[in-house]
Amino acid sequence: MTDDELSPAPPDFDRAFEDKLLELFRWRRDERHFKPDPLADGELDDLLKLVSLAPSVGNSQPWRFVRVVSSNKRKAIRDNFMACNSEALGDYHGEKAKLYASLKLEGMDRAPEHLSVFVDNDTDTGQGLGRRTMPETLAYSVVGGIYLLWLAARARGIGIGWVSIIDPVEVAKTLEVPPSWSLVAHLCIGYPEQHHIDPELERVGWQDRLDVSEFVTER
Amino acid sequence: MTDDELSPAPPDFDRAFEDKLLELFRWRRDERHFKPDPLADGELDDLLKLVSLAPSVGNSQPWRFVRVVSSNKRKAIRDNFMACNSEALGDYHGEKAKLYASLKLEGMDRAPEHLSVFVDNDTDTGQGLGRRTMPETLAYSVVGGIYLLWLAARARGIGIGWVSIIDPVEVAKTLEVPPSWSLVAHLCIGYPEQHHIDPELERVGWQDRLDVSEFVTER
Repeated sequence: MTDDELSPAPPDFDRAFEDKLLELFRWRRDERHFKPDPLADGELDDLLKLVSLAPSVGNSQPWRFVRVVSSNKRKAIRDNFMACNSEALGDYHGEKAKLYASLKLEGMDRAPEHLSVFVDNDTDTGQGLGRRTMPETLAYSVVGGIYLLWLAARARGIGIGWVSIIDPVEVAKTLEVPPSWSLVAHLCIGYPEQHHIDPELERVGWQDRLDVSEFVTER
Repeated sequence: MTDDELSPAPPDFDRAFEDKLLELFRWRRDERHFKPDPLADGELDDLLKLVSLAPSVGNSQPWRFVRVVSSNKRKAIRDNFMACNSEALGDYHGEKAKLYASLKLEGMDRAPEHLSVFVDNDTDTGQGLGRRTMPETLAYSVVGGIYLLWLAARARGIGIGWVSIIDPVEVAKTLEVPPSWSLVAHLCIGYPEQHHIDPELERVGWQDRLDVSEFVTER
């Protein structure tokens, strides 16, 4: 470990930065209301580059990104959402669930960028280290990458919405990805039309945020 | 949506903040070298409170935290790691894998706080919204919470190491959690003894970080 001295001194993350970081956590929304304006040239590529800074098990970096640009493929994914959503609505009653679905659909229809994010379950990168007893940590690594992307995008005024009411196997087929890839998320990305500090599901009365201390125990 | 006007204006996340955020992403390490000093009183509780700001599917907030304080239970988890690790080492040859294991063990032995993080697979919160076709999004929500905790901790000078070479079912038994809870991560938490900008696995020559643009395609 003689190369310790090669690391520069860590920056001073002072109280002002910490406060702003909390603001970023607060203002990162699951975005559904997009302006139709395209992202600036190269903006998405710049953001994606940052994902290498996310933690991954054994440094496996199993994130795989597919920018969905073909209108046929976008339509197939929209149809996939519609089919899964009408089944999901069978579980619920009332206007709230319908509202939720209509907002998500509006987001899919207006967002200028669609990004499907996969995990490569067969990657050799990292030589399998750390995931033998918990192979799901490979997908978890991709989730860390997505959350980093989400925060970095929001800091630049770009919103991301995560679509999960979708058949993941169908998305993989539609996008013709390798058989070892599984869908982790389908993301809609663009400039937000509205700005909210509270989650949409809290605002429309679906589910409030709860105090985390309720979920902490000791053993 | 007439309550749009209730949201305050979003803060200005300027370039200086963005640069500092990238520094935070860069300096967030999977920590293995802890000082034995305890965290300041209430510090971990303060950090855990922030997890409510992480995204969760249908606002389900399925994160469940167990602070492992009993020395017997810590020992059981250490033994669990040792057993899984000696099996894992059977897969590898050479000094690097042994080094990795010894560093992780040192981290477990020195970190003042041990936190096991679970997902509650049966939570009613969020009424099941959004997770019918991809139930794994419930665990993914917990991962988002862990990454938020990791960043917030690092901003305060606190390091976190994620132990995944562990039998998750055994940890659940050891900690006597409800049957609907599954382990997502076992975290070691404390003040770092060293500061590095590069991942340990990169530094010791196990696995370099790769350019994310290699992992981006278009369809």
